Amino acid sequence: MRIFSGDYGLFVVGGGPGDPDLLTLKAYKLLQRADVILYDNLINKKLLEIASERCEMVYVGKKPYGNYTPQEEIHELIRHYAIPGRVVVRLKGGDPFIFGRGFEELLFAEANGIPVQYIPGISSMQASGFNCIPLTHRGVSESIWVITGTKKDGSLSGDLRCAIQSAATVVIYMGMKKLAEIAAIYKASGLGSMPAAMIQHATLPHQKKVVCKVKDLEQAAVKGGVGYPAIIIIGKVVGLRDALLHNPDS
Amino acid sequence: MRIFSGDYGLFVVGGGPGDPDLLTLKAYKLLQRADVILYDNLINKKLLEIASERCEMVYVGKKPYGNYTPQEEIHELIRHYAIPGRVVVRLKGGDPFIFGRGFEELLFAEANGIPVQYIPGISSMQASGFNCIPLTHRGVSESIWVITGTKKDGSLSGDLRCAIQSAATVVIYMGMKKLAEIAAIYKASGLGSMPAAMIQHATLPHQKKVVCKVKDLEQAAVKGGVGYPAIIIIGKVVGLRDALLHNPDS
Repeated sequence: MRIFSGDYGLFVVGGGPGDPDLLTLKAYKLLQRADVILYDNLINKKLLEIASERCEMVYVGKKPYGNYTPQEEIHELIRHYAIPGRVVVRLKGGDPFIFGRGFEELLFAEANGIPVQYIPGISSMQASGFNCIPLTHRGVSESIWVITGTKKDGSLSGDLRCAIQSAATVVIYMGMKKLAEIAAIYKASGLGSMPAAMIQHATLPHQKKVVCKVKDLEQAAVKGGVGYPAIIIIGKVVGLRDALLHNPDS
Repeated sequence: MRIFSGDYGLFVVGGGPGDPDLLTLKAYKLLQRADVILYDNLINKKLLEIASERCEMVYVGKKPYGNYTPQEEIHELIRHYAIPGRVVVRLKGGDPFIFGRGFEELLFAEANGIPVQYIPGISSMQASGFNCIPLTHRGVSESIWVITGTKKDGSLSGDLRCAIQSAATVVIYMGMKKLAEIAAIYKASGLGSMPAAMIQHATLPHQKKVVCKVKDLEQAAVKGGVGYPAIIIIGKVVGLRDALLHNPDS
């Protein structure tokens, strides 16, 4: 795995859920010495302030369900900027290898002779912990199923039908346009009362969050003003703290 | 959620997979001002060097399948040390809310009037990215199922039987004593040739890794000298790089 090291090349970096303090030390140091940063729409713009004044910032974002920079164009930008001796950071929200398409860009670079390196980030789902929702809890949920609401063909992952047969905590990325469909799948299995949460801008001061029953996802999102992108968490770990502390008002 | 903030109390902190540079800035700053650190066996001891000289270090580790500090004793230590005005860090490997039992300790502290805060860590599964294994890849794997090999009652999660019916990347924590059982479940479904990887001490210089077919997990672990704790990753994302680059020798 010799190519996965080195002082220059393309670094596919996880920017974490939002709070700049949730960046890893490795990512922080790399941003400081970056020559170019290709950054997503989903990252907190404060992360760019870590870079030096000589660093060139290039926006390659995709607005959820809106205008976007085609993947091929991002690839061309990588080829254009990542010349020998230069540190090019491809900065993505969350973790680049968890629904981030980071591996595609990394393979493209590698196939073009560019040294590449991956730096993980705190994934958005982990930010649920700041809302008192653990992803696992012994005796309550001993697995996590992380699913995309928008597959390559635009459809909701069929894996959700498997997932609800299990005791897993279900986490759905990019699912805010599929709320009715998700609710229907649970209802059809008699699980409409399963607790659910939707969290947008987790870890940031303007976070929005609602907790509801999975059957009410759509109405609760409207009422709570939660838009996209947001993370959806479904399972008994939601509301567990209140249940265990017998203190629903805290 | 007023108690989830503050300058002192119990901080349940994710130490990440091993490399100290994968700590978050938030965790790093907290270790610097810790008065007491209650640390696990699984963390890299180099993380303790971040703390000041006045910080008291208390080992509360559990050796995998070996001697351990009972959870009740850890709770008592939390109550003993976390007096008002003091920063007590409960440092865990990976992320505290992903099979870390962090939420149990946090709830215990909260029920005892101690201010609590959670700080996520890069989870061990994300370290697979350093071995060219993305957890998701469009068109190949669009979900991740994270399972424990050792449930509360010691058994392998029954969710694995659901998981193999899906297109998910399967990640198994604490499963190194269940390799034969895992292999048998896949073989029984005609999926014995599914690619698998086992990684121990990920992100550290002494990392051990093997890649094999899932049916050969047990023999491959012995041959490759991979012990526990290690992470097991099963799915088409393993070996994807070589398949896509048509360059099996790199």
